[in-house]
Amino acid sequence: MFDKIRKSNSIFRPHFKTHQSLEIGNIFRRKGIDKITVSSVSMAEYFAKDGWNDITIAFPVNRLEVEEINHLASSIQLNLLVDSAYSTSFLAEKLQHNVGVFIKVDTGYHRSGLLPEDPEIDKIVTTLSNSEKLTFKGFLTHAGHTYSARGKESILGIMDDSKEKLNKLKAKYIDQFPEIISSYGDTPSCSMADDCSGFDEIRPGNFVFYDVMQYHIGSCSLDDIAVAIACPVVSVYPIRNEIIIYGGAIHLSKEFIEADNNFKLFGYVVEFTENGWSTPIPGAYVSSLSQEHGIIKMPQKFIDKFKPGDVLGILPVHSCLTVNLLARKD
Amino acid sequence: MFDKIRKSNSIFRPHFKTHQSLEIGNIFRRKGIDKITVSSVSMAEYFAKDGWNDITIAFPVNRLEVEEINHLASSIQLNLLVDSAYSTSFLAEKLQHNVGVFIKVDTGYHRSGLLPEDPEIDKIVTTLSNSEKLTFKGFLTHAGHTYSARGKESILGIMDDSKEKLNKLKAKYIDQFPEIISSYGDTPSCSMADDCSGFDEIRPGNFVFYDVMQYHIGSCSLDDIAVAIACPVVSVYPIRNEIIIYGGAIHLSKEFIEADNNFKLFGYVVEFTENGWSTPIPGAYVSSLSQEHGIIKMPQKFIDKFKPGDVLGILPVHSCLTVNLLARKD
Repeated sequence: MFDKIRKSNSIFRPHFKTHQSLEIGNIFRRKGIDKITVSSVSMAEYFAKDGWNDITIAFPVNRLEVEEINHLASSIQLNLLVDSAYSTSFLAEKLQHNVGVFIKVDTGYHRSGLLPEDPEIDKIVTTLSNSEKLTFKGFLTHAGHTYSARGKESILGIMDDSKEKLNKLKAKYIDQFPEIISSYGDTPSCSMADDCSGFDEIRPGNFVFYDVMQYHIGSCSLDDIAVAIACPVVSVYPIRNEIIIYGGAIHLSKEFIEADNNFKLFGYVVEFTENGWSTPIPGAYVSSLSQEHGIIKMPQKFIDKFKPGDVLGILPVHSCLTVNLLARKD
Repeated sequence: MFDKIRKSNSIFRPHFKTHQSLEIGNIFRRKGIDKITVSSVSMAEYFAKDGWNDITIAFPVNRLEVEEINHLASSIQLNLLVDSAYSTSFLAEKLQHNVGVFIKVDTGYHRSGLLPEDPEIDKIVTTLSNSEKLTFKGFLTHAGHTYSARGKESILGIMDDSKEKLNKLKAKYIDQFPEIISSYGDTPSCSMADDCSGFDEIRPGNFVFYDVMQYHIGSCSLDDIAVAIACPVVSVYPIRNEIIIYGGAIHLSKEFIEADNNFKLFGYVVEFTENGWSTPIPGAYVSSLSQEHGIIKMPQKFIDKFKPGDVLGILPVHSCLTVNLLARKD
């Protein structure tokens, strides 16, 4: 990802919400990364304390945290997201330090952000241009609809469409604001594209671990998944081809992959080896989760190998949520 | 729940995994409760530090925590669950202090536990009777299949069936072990039953808060739901009848209620009042969650009332998971 984005001449501003780890942050730092993305004010505070001083909070600004935002902005370059003139005016009035402001654009995901043709964008730009504290940074999108798309062509089509929309907006305002940029990020399209050029900034995050969902989307191979949860076996039921692990919803999260006939998969099952872990045990998967229990379905020919006290590895469906539950954040 | 179980002459051993709160624990203590259930060794340690000294860990014993179990058992009355002679022999060999041991029985949920007719039960009883440290406490079940049952008759049918199975097992061994008991617990059946008698011990937990899932099962009314998550509004999109809140999967958990046509509901929406909160806003619900964002769908006639900076309350689908994510456990 690093090499590809460098080749595209874009700024690489990785999203740190997936790992939330100072140690992994340092791996990025050693590669020369000095700008990051996070998803909350508290996560920005956490990384700012570790010396990160150029942080974008990629979440519509929460007015109730204006005090914390002021505190952060007093010591680092902080960038915020807005999608209404109402919130922008609030920031213009309340902020005591310079912050960068991106307009969040909805290029088709329909979560947060303004549609490219929304007249609200003009109002926000006017408010920004009249403010001393707010610097208009440009247009930002998260193309989260790549997660429900299937197939490389369809996913790269979303990337191209987002590129066109962001660059059209940028072109409209670039004369008045020569410093504005386009910022784009999602792991599926950034993983599949051979070429990420055409955006000024790229912000994927999940690729640092990948997960079973990304494998199903086609963003990565099983070998690329870089996180496995160590779960002790507590019961083995050969009669129903099931193993119970200490590893439930409060460890893995309830994210799942769905298929026909009510089939649900909450993770793949691997065996730990001296240097890592095996490929998934064929036909084995986490079929159900309650608060602390996980149920693994496993074919007859493998199940007799395991007994209580063994430790199985689970490749999570959504690494961001699993790591959020299990990571030490101190 | 307290009055009903007292009337049934059963021991009330509430499950504390739902609230994980010392403060709420104290409410139970003031009502005279001195025996509790938890779902992990770490939760047992947490409550033991607060003076709880009779704790059942209602999870198949995890051999890898034997050191922590020994430490706990040195100072409190600890009860463990087993469902194999293999794990029971391990405990008999490794434990240094007296612990109580329940045999986990599967009365139809098919998560953990042995079927009532499983010959493994006899082997476990033999191992227990030969051990100095292990005291055979009796038979315990969690009738989790009440969660997927619908209708009072069907749910109380599960309760009766479990009662019959546990008492039959108890009858088989009572002459040899006069102190053994039957232990039962799940919120749906204990909520719906007018009479909980026939078990020696009852262990529901979720009822302390209830939630949207329990409301859908029929265990409680909406008024009984005793937890709401305060979520700041960050964006309002009247054009698509949606509000974005700061309240996502890492706050609420991804548990949902499902209906036809791919309908998913991740929570009801309420307004806070001076003394609590309103009934749910009609037609409004959390329709989607990502890591930090929640999307609320809300009918046109209500949506104009809200703007960024307002705080909405969300009644969670599964209070145990939501509280686990948000509770301060220090």
